[in-house]
Amino acid sequence: MSSSQATSEAIPTVASPARLHYFEGRGLAESVRLMLAATETEFEFVPVTTHEAFLALRDSGRLLFGQLPLLEIDGLNLVQSMAMVRYLARRGHLYGATPEDAVEADMIADSIRDALRAFTSLPFARDRTAAIDAAAAAAAKYFPRFEAILERAPASSVYFVGAKLTYPDVTLVELTCYALEVLGHDVLDAYPCLAAHHAAMVALPGIAAYLASPQRYKLGDAVYVEQVNRVLGR
Amino acid sequence: MSSSQATSEAIPTVASPARLHYFEGRGLAESVRLMLAATETEFEFVPVTTHEAFLALRDSGRLLFGQLPLLEIDGLNLVQSMAMVRYLARRGHLYGATPEDAVEADMIADSIRDALRAFTSLPFARDRTAAIDAAAAAAAKYFPRFEAILERAPASSVYFVGAKLTYPDVTLVELTCYALEVLGHDVLDAYPCLAAHHAAMVALPGIAAYLASPQRYKLGDAVYVEQVNRVLGR
Repeated sequence: MSSSQATSEAIPTVASPARLHYFEGRGLAESVRLMLAATETEFEFVPVTTHEAFLALRDSGRLLFGQLPLLEIDGLNLVQSMAMVRYLARRGHLYGATPEDAVEADMIADSIRDALRAFTSLPFARDRTAAIDAAAAAAAKYFPRFEAILERAPASSVYFVGAKLTYPDVTLVELTCYALEVLGHDVLDAYPCLAAHHAAMVALPGIAAYLASPQRYKLGDAVYVEQVNRVLGR
Repeated sequence: MSSSQATSEAIPTVASPARLHYFEGRGLAESVRLMLAATETEFEFVPVTTHEAFLALRDSGRLLFGQLPLLEIDGLNLVQSMAMVRYLARRGHLYGATPEDAVEADMIADSIRDALRAFTSLPFARDRTAAIDAAAAAAAKYFPRFEAILERAPASSVYFVGAKLTYPDVTLVELTCYALEVLGHDVLDAYPCLAAHHAAMVALPGIAAYLASPQRYKLGDAVYVEQVNRVLGR
């Protein structure tokens, strides 16, 4: 407020880092974490571990639909994980340069999301064997289609759209990581383009650093499920 | 191929109208039909009524993930209904003018989609009473939240984002129509902003014309369910 600062000199802005609020697990927040990692956007993770903390967050008015995750970024309170992913895609220029590229990215990303559901729901399954079968079925249904799209890319590119990194490349690596962990290390052997895509993605500096960090959670287990239920008061 | 056509005179281009392929019912195509209507985009509806027609479409390579609906537009073969909706939103300038408006539109639209699921799945429910209870629960959960967002709009606007029509306004009218038909004509009485929104939306010229046309299907019934199962060969 000092008048001596009212000069043409720019006052350095300290942008507050993004803050992601969620349970201590991957869940619906993981695509968002990977997008933050891929775009090398610094973020603070705020674990929501008690029902009281959840109610306080809800009563603060920052959860537009009363649900987690919440991403505070650029002065906005974002909810709905795919809306966050798309916001980060626009912000990080990972949405494709043309309407044609953008819709191709959206089509692929929505199908990745459909396939991911079988894996994100795994910790909550009552019949674990049936749930793993469903995850295997999702992989068997979608992987040949993702492989076919990647096969059409120019020889110099491992990416889905326009020979450039776009946001479905980032959400696919969430799926391939899950598949390798849940279905076995040979699950990509029949899909050379998917395997090359996975190898390229986990080597991107932002993603490599994130996957090696303590911020990356392991597969959800009984402790995670218990926390989710406790936080939501159910 | 006649060389006499190789002049500098422009040959008039007849843009082919959009073509939407789906079952003879609302289902996942309805948000797309409403977006085409709201943007006053002429389209031809191509009903897919036999398993053979579905297989022919699939074998033509136009169904990126082997699923309906398919929207042929601007020379593109679009799949995934929300990807179509977003493409039409960009094309028709219904996505908000800034990244802040775009993410708000996405957050609201994804929640509308979550709420719609209880209604689009109704015709397929084994226990119809339980399914209608679930639809009522979805309305009770989401309507107060949509009402609160609409309440914050400037007095001169009935719309969700930036005091202008954006794509979640269009998909909300799908939901309010369903709720009025399934849950009763008084379902919006407790939500004055939602009621005003509904009234304004069904009066938009493109939407009014579509809703009054034979292209608008009634609620799905046993005949619709039988067709879907027959077409998909299940």
